[in-house]
Amino acid sequence: MNTPLKIGIIGGTGALGSGLAARWAKAGRYVVIGSRRIESAQATCESIVAGAIEGRDNEAPRVSYGLNVDVARDADVIVVTVPFDQQEKTLASIREFVQGKIVIDTTVPLLPPKVGTVNVPESGAAAVSAKCILGEDVKVFSAFHNVAADKLQSLEELDCDVLVFGDDKDDRPVVISLVEDAGMRGFYGGGLRNSIAAEALTSVLITINRQLKCQTGIRLVGMH
Amino acid sequence: MNTPLKIGIIGGTGALGSGLAARWAKAGRYVVIGSRRIESAQATCESIVAGAIEGRDNEAPRVSYGLNVDVARDADVIVVTVPFDQQEKTLASIREFVQGKIVIDTTVPLLPPKVGTVNVPESGAAAVSAKCILGEDVKVFSAFHNVAADKLQSLEELDCDVLVFGDDKDDRPVVISLVEDAGMRGFYGGGLRNSIAAEALTSVLITINRQLKCQTGIRLVGMH
Repeated sequence: MNTPLKIGIIGGTGALGSGLAARWAKAGRYVVIGSRRIESAQATCESIVAGAIEGRDNEAPRVSYGLNVDVARDADVIVVTVPFDQQEKTLASIREFVQGKIVIDTTVPLLPPKVGTVNVPESGAAAVSAKCILGEDVKVFSAFHNVAADKLQSLEELDCDVLVFGDDKDDRPVVISLVEDAGMRGFYGGGLRNSIAAEALTSVLITINRQLKCQTGIRLVGMH
Repeated sequence: MNTPLKIGIIGGTGALGSGLAARWAKAGRYVVIGSRRIESAQATCESIVAGAIEGRDNEAPRVSYGLNVDVARDADVIVVTVPFDQQEKTLASIREFVQGKIVIDTTVPLLPPKVGTVNVPESGAAAVSAKCILGEDVKVFSAFHNVAADKLQSLEELDCDVLVFGDDKDDRPVVISLVEDAGMRGFYGGGLRNSIAAEALTSVLITINRQLKCQTGIRLVGMH
Protein backbone atom coordinates (compact mmCIF):
# COMPACT_ATOMS: atom_id res chain seq x y z
CA MET A 1 0.00 0.00 0.00
CA ASN A 2 1.24 3.45 -0.85
CA THR A 3 1.78 6.01 1.84
CA PRO A 4 -1.04 8.55 1.45
CA LEU A 5 -0.13 11.96 0.05
CA LYS A 6 0.34 14.60 2.69
CA ILE A 7 -1.31 17.85 1.60
CA GLY A 8 0.27 20.89 3.23
CA ILE A 9 -1.73 24.11 3.22
CA ILE A 10 0.36 27.26 3.49
CA GLY A 11 -1.81 29.99 4.94
CA GLY A 12 -4.20 27.27 6.01
CA THR A 13 -5.98 29.34 8.63
CA GLY A 14 -7.69 31.67 6.13
CA ALA A 15 -11.15 31.13 4.69
CA LEU A 16 -10.00 29.41 1.48
CA GLY A 17 -7.24 27.29 3.07
CA SER A 18 -9.28 26.08 6.02
CA GLY A 19 -12.29 25.43 3.80
CA LEU A 20 -10.24 23.25 1.45
CA ALA A 21 -8.59 21.52 4.43
CA ALA A 22 -11.95 20.67 5.98
CA ARG A 23 -13.26 19.22 2.72
CA TRP A 24 -10.14 17.17 2.10
CA ALA A 25 -10.11 15.88 5.68
CA LYS A 26 -13.72 14.84 5.29
CA ALA A 27 -12.82 13.04 2.05
CA GLY A 28 -10.18 11.05 3.94
CA ARG A 29 -7.14 13.00 2.79
CA TYR A 30 -4.15 13.63 5.04
CA VAL A 31 -3.98 17.41 5.59
CA VAL A 32 -1.43 19.59 7.39
CA ILE A 33 -2.47 23.15 8.28
CA GLY A 34 0.33 25.71 8.01
CA SER A 35 0.48 29.19 9.46
CA ARG A 36 3.06 31.77 10.47
CA ARG A 37 1.70 31.45 14.01
CA ILE A 38 1.58 27.98 15.51
CA GLU A 39 -1.39 28.82 17.79
CA SER A 40 -3.51 29.79 14.77
CA ALA A 41 -2.57 26.60 12.93
CA GLN A 42 -3.46 24.53 16.00
CA ALA A 43 -6.83 26.26 16.46
CA THR A 44 -7.78 25.74 12.81
CA CYS A 45 -6.65 22.12 12.97
CA GLU A 46 -8.79 21.45 16.04
CA SER A 47 -11.89 23.01 14.56
CA ILE A 48 -11.42 20.99 11.36
CA VAL A 49 -11.03 17.75 13.31
CA ALA A 50 -14.21 18.56 15.25
CA GLY A 51 -16.15 19.33 12.05
CA ALA A 52 -14.79 16.46 9.99
CA ILE A 53 -15.54 13.76 12.55
CA GLU A 54 -19.27 14.33 12.11
CA GLY A 55 -19.26 13.20 8.53
CA ARG A 56 -17.11 10.08 9.06
CA ASP A 57 -18.19 6.80 10.57
CA ASN A 58 -15.17 4.84 11.63
CA GLU A 59 -11.94 6.61 10.88
CA ALA A 60 -10.58 9.71 12.61
CA PRO A 61 -9.64 12.46 10.14
CA ARG A 62 -5.92 12.85 9.58
CA VAL A 63 -5.24 16.53 10.18
CA SER A 64 -2.17 18.04 11.76
CA TYR A 65 -0.57 21.47 11.85
CA GLY A 66 2.73 23.33 11.88
CA LEU A 67 4.57 26.48 10.89
CA ASN A 68 4.38 27.22 7.14
CA VAL A 69 8.04 26.30 6.53
CA ASP A 70 7.76 23.02 8.45
CA VAL A 71 4.56 22.12 6.61
CA ALA A 72 6.24 22.87 3.27
CA ARG A 73 9.16 20.60 4.21
CA ASP A 74 6.93 17.80 5.45
CA ALA A 75 4.15 17.70 2.83
CA ASP A 76 4.10 16.00 -0.59
CA VAL A 77 1.72 18.46 -2.23
CA ILE A 78 1.70 22.09 -1.14
CA VAL A 79 -1.33 24.35 -1.54
CA VAL A 80 -0.67 28.08 -1.11
CA THR A 81 -3.66 30.15 0.04
CA VAL A 82 -2.30 33.53 1.03
CA PRO A 83 -3.39 37.03 -0.04
CA PHE A 84 -1.69 38.53 -3.13
CA ASP A 85 0.44 40.91 -1.06
CA GLN A 86 1.87 37.92 0.82
CA GLN A 87 2.46 35.72 -2.21
CA GLU A 88 6.05 36.66 -3.06
CA LYS A 89 7.33 36.61 0.52
CA THR A 90 5.56 33.37 1.38
CA LEU A 91 6.74 31.50 -1.71
CA ALA A 92 10.31 32.72 -1.20
CA SER A 93 10.19 31.40 2.38
CA ILE A 94 9.18 27.87 1.35
CA ARG A 95 11.15 27.73 -1.91
CA GLU A 96 13.94 25.46 -0.67
CA PHE A 97 11.48 22.97 0.86
CA VAL A 98 9.24 22.42 -2.17
CA GLN A 99 11.78 21.59 -4.88
CA GLY A 100 10.54 18.68 -7.01
CA LYS A 101 7.07 18.82 -5.44
CA ILE A 102 3.65 19.88 -6.69
CA VAL A 103 2.68 23.37 -5.52
CA ILE A 104 -0.87 24.58 -6.14
CA ASP A 105 -1.02 28.37 -5.97
CA THR A 106 -4.45 29.94 -5.48
CA THR A 107 -3.37 33.57 -5.64
CA VAL A 108 -5.70 36.09 -7.25
CA PRO A 109 -3.83 39.37 -7.94
CA LEU A 110 -6.40 41.65 -6.30
CA LEU A 111 -5.31 45.19 -5.43
CA PRO A 112 -7.48 46.40 -2.51
CA PRO A 113 -9.56 48.45 -2.25
CA LYS A 114 -10.31 48.09 -6.00
CA VAL A 115 -10.89 44.34 -5.88
CA GLY A 116 -13.61 44.58 -8.54
CA THR A 117 -11.07 45.86 -11.10
CA VAL A 118 -8.87 43.38 -12.93
CA ASN A 119 -5.14 43.62 -12.18
CA VAL A 120 -2.79 41.80 -14.54
CA PRO A 121 0.65 41.30 -12.92
CA GLU A 122 3.69 42.21 -15.01
CA SER A 123 4.56 38.51 -15.34
CA GLY A 124 1.19 37.94 -17.05
CA ALA A 125 -0.45 36.02 -14.20
CA ALA A 126 0.01 35.41 -10.47
CA ALA A 127 0.64 31.75 -11.34
CA VAL A 128 3.50 32.72 -13.66
CA SER A 129 4.96 34.84 -10.83
CA ALA A 130 4.78 31.79 -8.55
CA LYS A 131 6.74 29.71 -11.05
CA CYS A 132 9.36 32.48 -11.37
CA ILE A 133 9.82 32.58 -7.60
CA LEU A 134 9.81 28.81 -7.00
CA GLY A 135 11.98 27.83 -9.96
CA GLU A 136 11.96 25.34 -12.80
CA ASP A 137 12.04 22.18 -10.67
CA VAL A 138 8.80 22.91 -8.85
CA LYS A 139 5.62 21.58 -10.49
CA VAL A 140 3.53 24.72 -10.17
CA PHE A 141 -0.23 24.64 -10.76
CA SER A 142 -2.91 27.19 -10.05
CA ALA A 143 -6.55 26.55 -9.14
CA PHE A 144 -9.51 27.51 -6.91
CA HIS A 145 -9.50 31.17 -8.04
CA ASN A 146 -13.25 31.50 -8.43
CA VAL A 147 -14.53 29.54 -5.46
CA ALA A 148 -16.50 31.51 -2.87
CA ALA A 149 -14.50 30.78 0.31
CA ASP A 150 -17.57 31.19 2.54
CA LYS A 151 -19.42 28.46 0.68
CA LEU A 152 -16.35 26.25 0.78
CA GLN A 153 -16.21 26.48 4.56
CA SER A 154 -19.84 25.60 5.09
CA LEU A 155 -19.27 22.13 3.61
CA GLU A 156 -22.54 22.57 1.70
CA GLU A 157 -22.72 21.25 -1.86
CA LEU A 158 -20.80 23.52 -4.22
CA ASP A 159 -22.39 24.57 -7.47
CA CYS A 160 -19.23 25.67 -9.28
CA ASP A 161 -16.35 24.34 -11.35
CA VAL A 162 -12.62 24.84 -10.89
CA LEU A 163 -10.18 25.75 -13.66
CA VAL A 164 -6.73 24.20 -13.23
CA PHE A 165 -3.59 25.54 -14.92
CA GLY A 166 -0.04 24.20 -15.07
CA ASP A 167 2.81 23.33 -17.39
CA ASP A 168 3.51 19.83 -16.00
CA LYS A 169 1.29 17.47 -17.93
CA ASP A 170 2.03 14.31 -15.93
CA ASP A 171 0.88 15.77 -12.61
CA ARG A 172 -2.45 17.13 -13.78
CA PRO A 173 -4.46 14.11 -12.54
CA VAL A 174 -3.20 14.65 -8.97
CA VAL A 175 -4.48 18.22 -9.00
CA ILE A 176 -7.79 17.35 -10.65
CA SER A 177 -8.40 14.61 -8.07
CA LEU A 178 -7.81 17.11 -5.26
CA VAL A 179 -10.41 19.41 -6.82
CA GLU A 180 -12.84 16.50 -6.97
CA ASP A 181 -12.18 15.51 -3.36
CA ALA A 182 -13.04 19.10 -2.41
CA GLY A 183 -16.43 18.50 -4.02
CA MET A 184 -16.08 20.24 -7.38
CA ARG A 185 -15.38 19.40 -11.01
CA GLY A 186 -11.91 20.35 -12.20
CA PHE A 187 -11.02 21.25 -15.79
CA TYR A 188 -7.53 21.65 -17.18
CA GLY A 189 -7.48 25.12 -18.78
CA GLY A 190 -3.93 25.21 -20.15
CA GLY A 191 -0.49 26.34 -19.06
CA LEU A 192 0.29 28.79 -16.26
CA ARG A 193 0.02 31.73 -18.63
CA ASN A 194 -3.68 30.93 -19.12
CA SER A 195 -4.23 31.27 -15.37
CA ILE A 196 -4.86 35.01 -15.81
CA ALA A 197 -8.27 34.13 -17.24
CA ALA A 198 -9.44 32.63 -13.93
CA GLU A 199 -7.52 35.18 -11.86
CA ALA A 200 -9.13 38.09 -13.72
CA LEU A 201 -12.53 36.44 -13.61
CA THR A 202 -12.52 36.78 -9.82
CA SER A 203 -12.71 40.59 -10.10
CA VAL A 204 -15.53 40.22 -12.61
CA LEU A 205 -17.45 37.92 -10.23
CA ILE A 206 -16.88 40.39 -7.37
CA THR A 207 -18.35 43.15 -9.60
CA ILE A 208 -21.38 40.99 -10.39
CA ASN A 209 -21.80 39.91 -6.74
CA ARG A 210 -21.99 43.55 -5.66
CA GLN A 211 -24.84 44.20 -8.11
CA LEU A 212 -26.80 41.03 -7.37
CA LYS A 213 -26.01 40.78 -3.63
CA CYS A 214 -24.93 37.17 -3.88
CA GLN A 215 -21.90 34.93 -4.34
CA THR A 216 -21.63 33.80 -7.91
CA GLY A 217 -19.36 31.19 -9.40
CA ILE A 218 -19.02 29.69 -12.85
CA ARG A 219 -19.91 26.36 -14.37
CA LEU A 220 -18.84 25.01 -17.71
CA VAL A 221 -21.72 24.09 -19.97
CA GLY A 222 -22.09 22.58 -23.43
CA MET A 223 -20.27 19.35 -22.67
CA HIS A 224 -22.86 17.09 -24.29
CA MET B 1 -43.54 55.90 -31.16
CA ASN B 2 -39.76 55.88 -31.22
CA THR B 3 -37.90 54.91 -34.33
CA PRO B 4 -36.46 51.45 -33.67
CA LEU B 5 -32.72 51.20 -33.07
CA LYS B 6 -30.76 50.22 -36.14
CA ILE B 7 -28.10 47.65 -35.24
CA GLY B 8 -25.17 47.71 -37.66
CA ILE B 9 -22.90 44.66 -37.69
CA ILE B 10 -19.38 45.36 -38.93
CA GLY B 11 -17.94 42.11 -40.28
CA GLY B 12 -21.48 40.78 -40.28
CA THR B 13 -20.80 37.97 -42.74
CA GLY B 14 -18.67 35.92 -40.31
CA ALA B 15 -20.00 33.20 -38.02
CA LEU B 16 -20.43 35.41 -34.94
CA GLY B 17 -21.79 38.46 -36.78
CA SER B 18 -24.27 36.59 -38.95
CA GLY B 19 -25.36 34.44 -36.00
CA LEU B 20 -26.12 37.49 -33.88
CA ALA B 21 -27.84 39.18 -36.84
CA ALA B 22 -30.09 36.18 -37.42
CA ARG B 23 -31.09 36.05 -33.75
CA TRP B 24 -31.79 39.76 -33.56
CA ALA B 25 -33.78 39.71 -36.79
CA LYS B 26 -35.86 36.86 -35.40
CA ALA B 27 -36.44 38.89 -32.22
CA GLY B 28 -37.82 41.74 -34.33
CA ARG B 29 -34.75 43.97 -34.24
CA TYR B 30 -33.69 46.09 -37.19
CA VAL B 31 -30.32 44.75 -38.37
CA VAL B 32 -27.90 45.98 -41.03
CA ILE B 33 -25.19 43.57 -42.23
CA GLY B 34 -21.87 45.20 -43.01
CA SER B 35 -18.96 43.80 -45.01
CA ARG B 36 -15.98 45.02 -46.98
CA ARG B 37 -17.57 43.33 -50.01
CA ILE B 38 -21.11 44.31 -50.87
CA GLU B 39 -21.87 40.93 -52.49
CA SER B 40 -21.01 39.10 -49.26
CA ALA B 41 -23.17 41.43 -47.21
CA GLN B 42 -26.06 40.92 -49.60
CA ALA B 43 -25.72 37.12 -49.56
CA THR B 44 -25.67 37.02 -45.74
CA CYS B 45 -28.63 39.39 -45.57
CA GLU B 46 -30.67 37.21 -47.93
CA SER B 47 -29.94 34.02 -46.02
CA ILE B 48 -30.88 35.69 -42.74
CA VAL B 49 -34.17 36.96 -44.19
CA ALA B 50 -34.93 33.45 -45.43
CA GLY B 51 -34.12 31.90 -42.05
CA ALA B 52 -35.82 34.54 -39.92
CA ILE B 53 -39.13 34.47 -41.79
CA GLU B 54 -39.76 30.92 -40.58
CA GLY B 55 -39.97 31.97 -36.97
CA ARG B 56 -42.21 34.99 -37.49
CA ASP B 57 -45.93 35.01 -38.19
CA ASN B 58 -46.95 38.33 -39.60
CA GLU B 59 -44.07 40.74 -39.89
CA ALA B 60 -41.17 40.51 -42.35
CA PRO B 61 -37.79 40.72 -40.65
CA ARG B 62 -36.05 44.05 -41.02
CA VAL B 63 -32.61 43.20 -42.34
CA SER B 64 -30.59 45.20 -44.81
CA TYR B 65 -26.93 45.36 -45.82
CA GLY B 66 -24.13 47.66 -46.91
CA LEU B 67 -20.41 48.32 -46.88
CA ASN B 68 -18.93 48.48 -43.36
CA VAL B 69 -18.41 52.26 -43.49
CA ASP B 70 -21.94 52.92 -44.73
CA VAL B 71 -23.40 50.63 -42.08
CA ALA B 72 -21.39 52.40 -39.38
CA ARG B 73 -22.71 55.77 -40.59
CA ASP B 74 -26.29 54.60 -40.82
CA ALA B 75 -26.69 52.51 -37.65
CA ASP B 76 -27.46 53.63 -34.09
CA VAL B 77 -25.64 50.80 -32.35
CA ILE B 78 -22.57 49.25 -33.99
CA VAL B 79 -21.44 45.69 -33.26
CA VAL B 80 -17.91 44.83 -34.41
CA THR B 81 -17.29 41.15 -35.15
CA VAL B 82 -13.96 40.96 -36.98
CA PRO B 83 -10.88 38.83 -36.23
CA PHE B 84 -8.24 40.29 -33.90
CA ASP B 85 -5.82 41.03 -36.75
CA GLN B 86 -8.51 43.17 -38.44
CA GLN B 87 -9.63 45.01 -35.30
CA GLU B 88 -7.37 48.06 -35.47
CA LYS B 89 -7.81 48.69 -39.20
CA THR B 90 -11.56 48.15 -39.09
CA LEU B 91 -12.17 50.41 -36.09
CA ALA B 92 -9.98 53.14 -37.61
CA SER B 93 -12.05 52.95 -40.81
CA ILE B 94 -15.37 53.52 -39.02
CA ARG B 95 -14.08 55.89 -36.32
CA GLU B 96 -15.52 59.09 -37.79
CA PHE B 97 -18.97 57.55 -38.31
CA VAL B 98 -19.52 56.19 -34.79
CA GLN B 99 -18.79 59.23 -32.64
CA GLY B 100 -21.37 59.54 -29.85
CA LYS B 101 -22.77 56.08 -30.58
CA ILE B 102 -22.65 52.73 -28.75
CA VAL B 103 -20.06 50.35 -30.21
CA ILE B 104 -20.00 46.75 -28.97
CA ASP B 105 -16.63 45.18 -29.70
CA THR B 106 -16.47 41.38 -29.64
CA THR B 107 -12.74 41.03 -30.32
CA VAL B 108 -10.85 38.19 -28.65
CA PRO B 109 -7.08 38.78 -28.93
CA LEU B 110 -6.23 35.32 -30.28
CA LEU B 111 -2.84 34.86 -31.92
CA PRO B 112 -3.13 31.95 -34.41
CA PRO B 113 -2.04 29.24 -34.49
CA LYS B 114 -1.74 29.29 -30.68
CA VAL B 115 -5.37 30.15 -30.05
CA GLY B 116 -5.45 28.01 -26.90
CA THR B 117 -2.85 30.23 -25.24
CA VAL B 118 -3.95 33.47 -23.60
CA ASN B 119 -2.65 36.65 -25.22
CA VAL B 120 -2.98 39.87 -23.22
CA PRO B 121 -2.66 42.94 -25.49
CA GLU B 122 -0.33 45.72 -24.34
CA SER B 123 -3.33 47.94 -23.65
CA GLY B 124 -4.58 45.35 -21.13
CA ALA B 125 -7.55 44.13 -23.18
CA ALA B 126 -8.82 44.19 -26.77
CA ALA B 127 -11.74 46.26 -25.49
CA VAL B 128 -9.36 48.88 -24.09
CA SER B 129 -7.59 48.97 -27.47
CA ALA B 130 -10.97 49.59 -29.12
CA LYS B 131 -11.63 52.56 -26.85
CA CYS B 132 -8.16 53.97 -27.60
CA ILE B 133 -8.78 53.76 -31.35
CA LEU B 134 -12.36 55.08 -31.32
CA GLY B 135 -11.86 57.90 -28.82
CA GLU B 136 -13.47 59.26 -25.69
CA ASP B 137 -16.83 60.17 -27.23
CA VAL B 138 -17.66 56.66 -28.35
CA LYS B 139 -19.56 54.50 -25.84
CA VAL B 140 -17.47 51.37 -26.15
CA PHE B 141 -18.68 48.05 -24.71
CA SER B 142 -17.40 44.53 -25.17
CA ALA B 143 -19.41 41.30 -25.10
CA PHE B 144 -20.04 37.90 -26.71
CA HIS B 145 -16.43 36.69 -26.21
CA ASN B 146 -17.30 33.21 -25.01
CA VAL B 147 -20.20 32.31 -27.26
CA ALA B 148 -19.68 29.36 -29.60
CA ALA B 149 -20.40 30.95 -33.00
CA ASP B 150 -21.60 27.65 -34.48
CA LYS B 151 -24.25 27.26 -31.83
CA LEU B 152 -25.27 30.89 -32.28
CA GLN B 153 -25.88 30.35 -35.98
CA SER B 154 -28.03 27.27 -35.50
CA LEU B 155 -30.67 29.33 -33.67
CA GLU B 156 -30.93 26.47 -31.15
CA GLU B 157 -31.35 27.36 -27.50
CA LEU B 158 -28.09 28.63 -26.03
CA ASP B 159 -26.91 27.30 -22.70
CA CYS B 160 -24.43 30.07 -21.88
CA ASP B 161 -24.19 33.54 -20.35
CA VAL B 162 -22.60 36.68 -21.75
CA LEU B 163 -20.31 39.00 -19.79
CA VAL B 164 -20.67 42.68 -20.77
CA PHE B 165 -18.00 45.31 -20.08
CA GLY B 166 -18.01 49.07 -20.55
CA ASP B 167 -17.31 52.37 -18.85
CA ASP B 168 -20.58 54.10 -19.78
CA LYS B 169 -23.04 53.28 -17.05
CA ASP B 170 -26.14 54.80 -18.64
CA ASP B 171 -25.96 52.70 -21.78
CA ARG B 172 -25.56 49.30 -20.10
CA PRO B 173 -29.28 48.44 -20.34
CA VAL B 174 -29.19 48.80 -24.15
CA VAL B 175 -26.35 46.30 -24.39
CA ILE B 176 -27.87 43.86 -21.89
CA SER B 177 -31.18 43.93 -23.80
CA LEU B 178 -29.34 43.08 -27.02
CA VAL B 179 -27.76 40.08 -25.29
CA GLU B 180 -31.20 38.99 -24.11
CA ASP B 181 -32.71 39.39 -27.58
CA ALA B 182 -29.95 37.10 -28.86
CA GLY B 183 -31.26 34.48 -26.43
CA MET B 184 -28.77 34.69 -23.56
CA ARG B 185 -28.47 36.21 -20.11
CA GLY B 186 -26.14 39.23 -19.93
CA PHE B 187 -24.20 40.26 -16.83
CA TYR B 188 -22.33 43.52 -16.39
CA GLY B 189 -18.80 42.52 -15.41
CA GLY B 190 -17.21 45.94 -14.93
CA GLY B 191 -15.28 48.49 -16.95
CA LEU B 192 -13.43 47.84 -20.22
CA ARG B 193 -10.29 46.86 -18.35
CA ASN B 194 -12.14 43.86 -16.89
CA SER B 195 -12.88 42.63 -20.41
CA ILE B 196 -9.57 40.73 -20.45
CA ALA B 197 -11.18 38.16 -18.13
CA ALA B 198 -13.70 37.14 -20.80
CA GLU B 199 -11.22 37.60 -23.66
CA ALA B 200 -8.67 35.33 -21.95
CA LEU B 201 -11.34 32.83 -21.00
CA THR B 202 -11.91 32.11 -24.70
CA SER B 203 -8.43 30.56 -24.99
CA VAL B 204 -9.14 28.51 -21.86
CA LEU B 205 -12.42 27.25 -23.32
CA ILE B 206 -10.64 26.39 -26.59
CA THR B 207 -8.10 24.37 -24.57
CA ILE B 208 -10.90 22.53 -22.76
CA ASN B 209 -12.87 21.98 -25.98
CA ARG B 210 -9.86 20.26 -27.55
CA GLN B 211 -9.67 17.81 -24.64
CA LEU B 212 -13.39 17.10 -24.40
CA LYS B 213 -14.22 17.33 -28.13
CA CYS B 214 -17.09 19.70 -27.57
CA GLN B 215 -18.00 23.38 -27.49
CA THR B 216 -18.11 24.62 -23.95
CA GLY B 217 -19.40 27.90 -22.61
CA ILE B 218 -19.85 29.31 -19.14
CA ARG B 219 -22.84 30.00 -16.95
CA LEU B 220 -22.95 32.01 -13.78
CA VAL B 221 -24.24 30.08 -10.81
CA GLY B 222 -24.92 30.86 -7.15
CA MET B 223 -27.43 33.63 -7.77
CA HIS B 224 -29.98 32.41 -5.23
